[in-house]
Amino acid sequence: MSISLPQHVRIVEVGPRDGLQNEKQVVPADTKLELIRRLAEAGLKTIEATSFVSPKWVPQMGDNTEVLTRVLAAAAPGVDYPVLTPNLKGFEAALAAGAKEVAVFGAASESFSQKNINCSIAESLARFRPVTEAAQAAGVKVRGYVSCVVGCPYEGEIAPQKVAEVAETLVSMGCYEVSLGDTIGSGNPVTVQRMLDAVMRRIPVTQLAGHYHDTYGMAVANIFASLQMGVAVFDASVGGLGGCPYAAGASGNVATEDVVWLLKGMGIDTGIDFDALVDTAAWISAELGRAPASRVARAVLAKRAQAAQAN
Amino acid sequence: MSISLPQHVRIVEVGPRDGLQNEKQVVPADTKLELIRRLAEAGLKTIEATSFVSPKWVPQMGDNTEVLTRVLAAAAPGVDYPVLTPNLKGFEAALAAGAKEVAVFGAASESFSQKNINCSIAESLARFRPVTEAAQAAGVKVRGYVSCVVGCPYEGEIAPQKVAEVAETLVSMGCYEVSLGDTIGSGNPVTVQRMLDAVMRRIPVTQLAGHYHDTYGMAVANIFASLQMGVAVFDASVGGLGGCPYAAGASGNVATEDVVWLLKGMGIDTGIDFDALVDTAAWISAELGRAPASRVARAVLAKRAQAAQAN
Repeated sequence: MSISLPQHVRIVEVGPRDGLQNEKQVVPADTKLELIRRLAEAGLKTIEATSFVSPKWVPQMGDNTEVLTRVLAAAAPGVDYPVLTPNLKGFEAALAAGAKEVAVFGAASESFSQKNINCSIAESLARFRPVTEAAQAAGVKVRGYVSCVVGCPYEGEIAPQKVAEVAETLVSMGCYEVSLGDTIGSGNPVTVQRMLDAVMRRIPVTQLAGHYHDTYGMAVANIFASLQMGVAVFDASVGGLGGCPYAAGASGNVATEDVVWLLKGMGIDTGIDFDALVDTAAWISAELGRAPASRVARAVLAKRAQAAQAN
Repeated sequence: MSISLPQHVRIVEVGPRDGLQNEKQVVPADTKLELIRRLAEAGLKTIEATSFVSPKWVPQMGDNTEVLTRVLAAAAPGVDYPVLTPNLKGFEAALAAGAKEVAVFGAASESFSQKNINCSIAESLARFRPVTEAAQAAGVKVRGYVSCVVGCPYEGEIAPQKVAEVAETLVSMGCYEVSLGDTIGSGNPVTVQRMLDAVMRRIPVTQLAGHYHDTYGMAVANIFASLQMGVAVFDASVGGLGGCPYAAGASGNVATEDVVWLLKGMGIDTGIDFDALVDTAAWISAELGRAPASRVARAVLAKRAQAAQAN
């Protein structure tokens, strides 16, 4: 095998937003702030801080203005704190709180778009345009998400071509990067590479990120498959925060420590302190009253406990 | 990506032996028989049935003669039931019970060999020679295992060259296949491909099997990486039976249902009925009083429960 893999990878930490948003418990703002602080200290350079959505729909993010304001007041140097802004109202609130980077969220599946945000894919993209225009005017960076890039909980397999179209539209609107989300974790290395191949015909790989869910334990393999295609940015959630909204008790976002373990082992630099990351996974999991969802965290913590016992 | 993957893969089910041997509880012979019967019914064609080791060291396999005799008396057509035979005494007992296939177990790490079987690698290989000779004389097939093919719990990284040497010796003794074991699960796609590359310079890939542990959640990625190298035989343990003897609470053998999920999704044929396999994982896990260690089993069972609730 002589496929060369990227030498450096950037991890976008989505635990404080995508993770905590999908937890049943509403976590206090102080805990969120401490989580974000620990993540920055562990070396994460992009930490999604919160979401400017209606607290009626997402009570977990009801403290978005407080969280973002306090995060930015204590911002670590060189760290970006993007926030999710699904519409202009959300964007204006984020901007008022000082946001320097925002993200918009589209789907590659018509049925998912209808059920999740109650409009067609085309309508949702049209709704993002004023956001990206306002962001450009304000000098705010915009990241784009595409969900259901391999499979959809309602309509099954998604055509790679559809993903490519949506991703291209987001880039044409000014998104500097598009994060490709395997929302239900149904992807495998073959279907992920097929999807990436279609997207890369429209968008340079340097503008793409992989966002994989570990529902069926395929995320690490899908990241390896994506690295082989040249993808060098991956979203991950410390401790596997978030779980899977489509199957109670199953895993959701791939755990950041699993991704860093993989990359570190393969000699790929992330700038992240692995041990500090595992500490953070253990700490936030304890705050939520459970063990980390991650195999790596569980194995490393078990080995640490054994070593402590032996001393 | 245009690397072609194998179209068919053979799974060697090691749950009843490698799995149950590493469980603390001693499972009754009747349960083992039922497990093996269900696995054969799900389509597994190679099921490691037991181990002919001293009950003093491995009480979990103390019923080896009873298990093998009863398994062979009710053997499913076209299914092989190999057993582990670490020495001539074990081989003779296995032969007396009717074994048609046996396996010997070497290490690629000197320290592991010393600590695990109390002799050097060379001495252990010399000990296998009478077994392989007696097996050939009796018309019994012999499979070889090599443990610690990437890392060792005592000495860290293992040189791929060392693995190649041990594997070649096993083949030269008459092993029809060599199973390469990442015993502590420390391998990743890069180190696994590097190891395979060294071994494949000595032995045709058609005589190799991958045996990966999921301690750090890397097994599925390592299987994908191995498929890219042409490996088409993998060992797996239903429900992830066995756990990790080197870190209590961590995962051990990759779960058979995870491997079949991966392969099925990528269009690779295994001849295995996925749903029957998940049923078997759920059943044996319940017998052991816990949930399956496998993400795939947990997600599929969670989705089934949700669907049942919706009806």
